[in-house]
Amino acid sequence: MPHIALPDDMPGITAGFAFRPETARPMRELAHILLHTSGTEGFSSRDRELVAAFVSSRNECYFCQTSHGAAASHLNGGDETLVDAVCRDFRSAAISEKVKSLLAIAEQVQIDGKRVTRELVEEARAHGATDLDIHDTVLIAAAFSMYNRYVDGLATVQPRDTQMYAHMGQRMAEKGYNSAG
Amino acid sequence: MPHIALPDDMPGITAGFAFRPETARPMRELAHILLHTSGTEGFSSRDRELVAAFVSSRNECYFCQTSHGAAASHLNGGDETLVDAVCRDFRSAAISEKVKSLLAIAEQVQIDGKRVTRELVEEARAHGATDLDIHDTVLIAAAFSMYNRYVDGLATVQPRDTQMYAHMGQRMAEKGYNSAG
Repeated sequence: MPHIALPDDMPGITAGFAFRPETARPMRELAHILLHTSGTEGFSSRDRELVAAFVSSRNECYFCQTSHGAAASHLNGGDETLVDAVCRDFRSAAISEKVKSLLAIAEQVQIDGKRVTRELVEEARAHGATDLDIHDTVLIAAAFSMYNRYVDGLATVQPRDTQMYAHMGQRMAEKGYNSAG
Repeated sequence: MPHIALPDDMPGITAGFAFRPETARPMRELAHILLHTSGTEGFSSRDRELVAAFVSSRNECYFCQTSHGAAASHLNGGDETLVDAVCRDFRSAAISEKVKSLLAIAEQVQIDGKRVTRELVEEARAHGATDLDIHDTVLIAAAFSMYNRYVDGLATVQPRDTQMYAHMGQRMAEKGYNSAG
């Protein structure tokens, strides 16, 4: 049961967003920019959703891991094995060396921003990451350190319903985050 | 030295904001709502800045702790001893039982949202906290888990210049966060 009187029947972050539309707006907009509208060939929306799902898995936030994992899977032609592989051991997953090196940065940010080393950044750059890719990786990992704590800190309802997350992930992947859609 | 090519001479988060104005806008707006425009008598802007400084101190983010500490001090009639006392041991600081109970929630969110217990929430409610106060406390603590990681994860320049932070804190306290001011 949620810690405060959140709207009934709304899962995860959507309940917090409905409770406080003023703060929902910038939180949605930030996700929309970082995950939906900034994808480039080497660091696509799929890859950005993978970073979001990965950080959420490290924070053990079921709702965010599962919904963003579903978005990544939808953007990966419906193949769900990739996101599982990334969360389990991204270094052996079937992704580019560039995305692996960005996940290695996100892995440290999830713990503490000060753990990002010059070596990790050089490694990403050597694999073709731009300053914008590195910036956005740091910020996606930082932002999910927020979203995860918000979802869990309010004790939101997080259904175990695979089909619900598949639908939600498809909508997120196709429409983004700006509307409650 | 910052990990990416941030604008010269801009301290802390202001450099990240200048590098990426698209993401700066919702990040500024969120801080503005949570810290500047939502203060009520029992959970004022000063108290909200105290939560921000406290969470930043736990994350050892010098820039955020010092700037939001300066904002809290400005809103406390210039008395800087309160923010130091809160960061050292909020339970013995000269603040209301309500704000102490909200800080106890923020203390857990900084580690993991799942650590917020029903008991901590009941305690806050017993001291007069509303659902909105509890929501905003969780979200301030979650948001500073983002801002702190962003500032540190980019290795921004964080000057040791007391006067600079005093000016910055005054501006934040008086004008809020929506403009680069």
